[in-house]
Amino acid sequence: MKKHNFYAGPSILSRQAIDNTIDAVRDFAGTGLSILEISHRSKEFSAVIEEAQALFKELLDIPAGYEVVFLGGGASTQFCMVPMNLLAKKAAYLDTGTWANKAIKEAKLFGEVDVVASSKEANYTFVPKDYTVPADVDYFHITTNNTIFGTEIRKDLDVPARLVADMSSDIFSRPVDVSKYDIIYGGAQKNLAPAGVTFVIVKVDALGKVDRALPTMLNYKTHIDKGSMFNTPPVLPIYTALQTLRWYKELGGVKELQRRDEEKAAYLYDAIDSSKMFVGTVNAEDRSIMNVCFVMKPEYKELEKEFIDFATARGIVGIKGHRSVGGFRASLYNALPLDSVKVLVEAMHDFENR
Amino acid sequence: MKKHNFYAGPSILSRQAIDNTIDAVRDFAGTGLSILEISHRSKEFSAVIEEAQALFKELLDIPAGYEVVFLGGGASTQFCMVPMNLLAKKAAYLDTGTWANKAIKEAKLFGEVDVVASSKEANYTFVPKDYTVPADVDYFHITTNNTIFGTEIRKDLDVPARLVADMSSDIFSRPVDVSKYDIIYGGAQKNLAPAGVTFVIVKVDALGKVDRALPTMLNYKTHIDKGSMFNTPPVLPIYTALQTLRWYKELGGVKELQRRDEEKAAYLYDAIDSSKMFVGTVNAEDRSIMNVCFVMKPEYKELEKEFIDFATARGIVGIKGHRSVGGFRASLYNALPLDSVKVLVEAMHDFENR
Repeated sequence: MKKHNFYAGPSILSRQAIDNTIDAVRDFAGTGLSILEISHRSKEFSAVIEEAQALFKELLDIPAGYEVVFLGGGASTQFCMVPMNLLAKKAAYLDTGTWANKAIKEAKLFGEVDVVASSKEANYTFVPKDYTVPADVDYFHITTNNTIFGTEIRKDLDVPARLVADMSSDIFSRPVDVSKYDIIYGGAQKNLAPAGVTFVIVKVDALGKVDRALPTMLNYKTHIDKGSMFNTPPVLPIYTALQTLRWYKELGGVKELQRRDEEKAAYLYDAIDSSKMFVGTVNAEDRSIMNVCFVMKPEYKELEKEFIDFATARGIVGIKGHRSVGGFRASLYNALPLDSVKVLVEAMHDFENR
Repeated sequence: MKKHNFYAGPSILSRQAIDNTIDAVRDFAGTGLSILEISHRSKEFSAVIEEAQALFKELLDIPAGYEVVFLGGGASTQFCMVPMNLLAKKAAYLDTGTWANKAIKEAKLFGEVDVVASSKEANYTFVPKDYTVPADVDYFHITTNNTIFGTEIRKDLDVPARLVADMSSDIFSRPVDVSKYDIIYGGAQKNLAPAGVTFVIVKVDALGKVDRALPTMLNYKTHIDKGSMFNTPPVLPIYTALQTLRWYKELGGVKELQRRDEEKAAYLYDAIDSSKMFVGTVNAEDRSIMNVCFVMKPEYKELEKEFIDFATARGIVGIKGHRSVGGFRASLYNALPLDSVKVLVEAMHDFENR
């Protein structure tokens, strides 16, 4: 049975990225060796990482003065690396969910942290908008997409401070004005690659302004200077990332990805809004186009488990909501085809009409 | 043409590990999804990581009170995590090569470091033995195998301190008395898995004795408490690691691996020692069984490049020596068959006899 992969991450990758990865695990670039057992210093892999960096810059239209590095350790490691590298005195953070909260916790180890607003009291069902970012902060940190709660900041904010953004789950879903950011980072296991690699876009001259001693591996400069090859990088995840980036370029770039993502999200939100049984969990204006969170209305609440089983029988995978929200979460990452969304919506209709 | 993979790392993996990985990239555990796009919280992947941890403990006969975690960031990140977590006041380090040196550099950020001995002046051609480890240190750090220079400490040292060891390139090549160590760590891309995962064996009650504030991701306790699932772990590299661990068990465990490794190394060192043209670069008693470093004798020095080409034409890959040593380095990791060593030795003979 065909599976429809709605996992929140690690999550669906394109057929092309998976097939090319299989080929490379069998025989990488005609070397007669597997990508799993090739030296990262080989000319064949150097070409991979260089092309991945170049395509990353091209697709996101990253201006001069920025570098892209591929690291291990996940976005969770960035929660401490960002303040280690940038927080000299004070930073501002916006608390929009679980991941924002974790980032705030780590920043507090390195300096003063001004949490300018939080929607925690409302279980993060909206993105705060009524706040002031002090002009004297080293940076203002946002989580653009809140994977767990299904809200999203889909524009580049105008604030009197440099931006730092965790874009783990919505990178490559819209054009980004990178020039407003000092750092954009994310775990790659949603819109890019399998788990195990983290991308970081860094404005090079934002570095070097803190005077704490940085461990070598936690210093962005180390990785920028060595083109992500200071130590052995996560070879296979980077290879698969390149396949995704090539596919994005073939499709027409981030504008086309945005069109597709918005079409998919509209299709599902329309179905939820016109449903007798299902209801969205967040403010309409803050809805994520990547992670659609919804529940059953109170009078149908006891049918949630049954719907999961109903959907599972149709090949729908990964729609169980996070325990912080309950109900359902359908993640509509770039590689998910509209057809899978249609299968889900049809399952919702059929379940309602039983 | 069949390739003989002598890369120093990332390096050869068993046919079984590669084939099983291909199967899982196509369809993981009958889920109908690729291992590249499966949630790390799925029951199918939870089973993988639990079995990998259990087999790691079984194969190395790890005593109670120790845990095994799988992290990102490479052994290079461990160079700072070890002192962050263990160095309260003073640590001792043995300087046996490039990697030991890098570990020493990071430790100095966190406390007093006593480098008890170094063979740097001799370009690390031997392992120092005449030194005293102070009894008042928090730990004594060693690099058991020096991948670049081809020396190795193949026993569990008797010193009046707890041991911490980087075993990146010789784990699973001999039985280890883990009870002498507080931490054993290593990048997995030599004897275990593709690049992207780092193993750490931790004595749990060695933790919690420093009073610095640890970033969450850099605290071993975080990962122990969550079974390496605090954040998204490197899924595919862990899957492949499990395939290697299963293969090790089928072969008969670390004693059988040791027998094979010693047989392969003896075969190559014997050929070097009886050669008119080639000569080893390190003291015989400190020779690594994992990385065999050798050069051409002075009178043949100009033939080194030619021998690389000669060997390449026979499918031999990755024998160029590291720039710190020059000449040749043949890495004989667990997955390398004796037959590949025989092909290399035959090439050496044929080259000599031209």
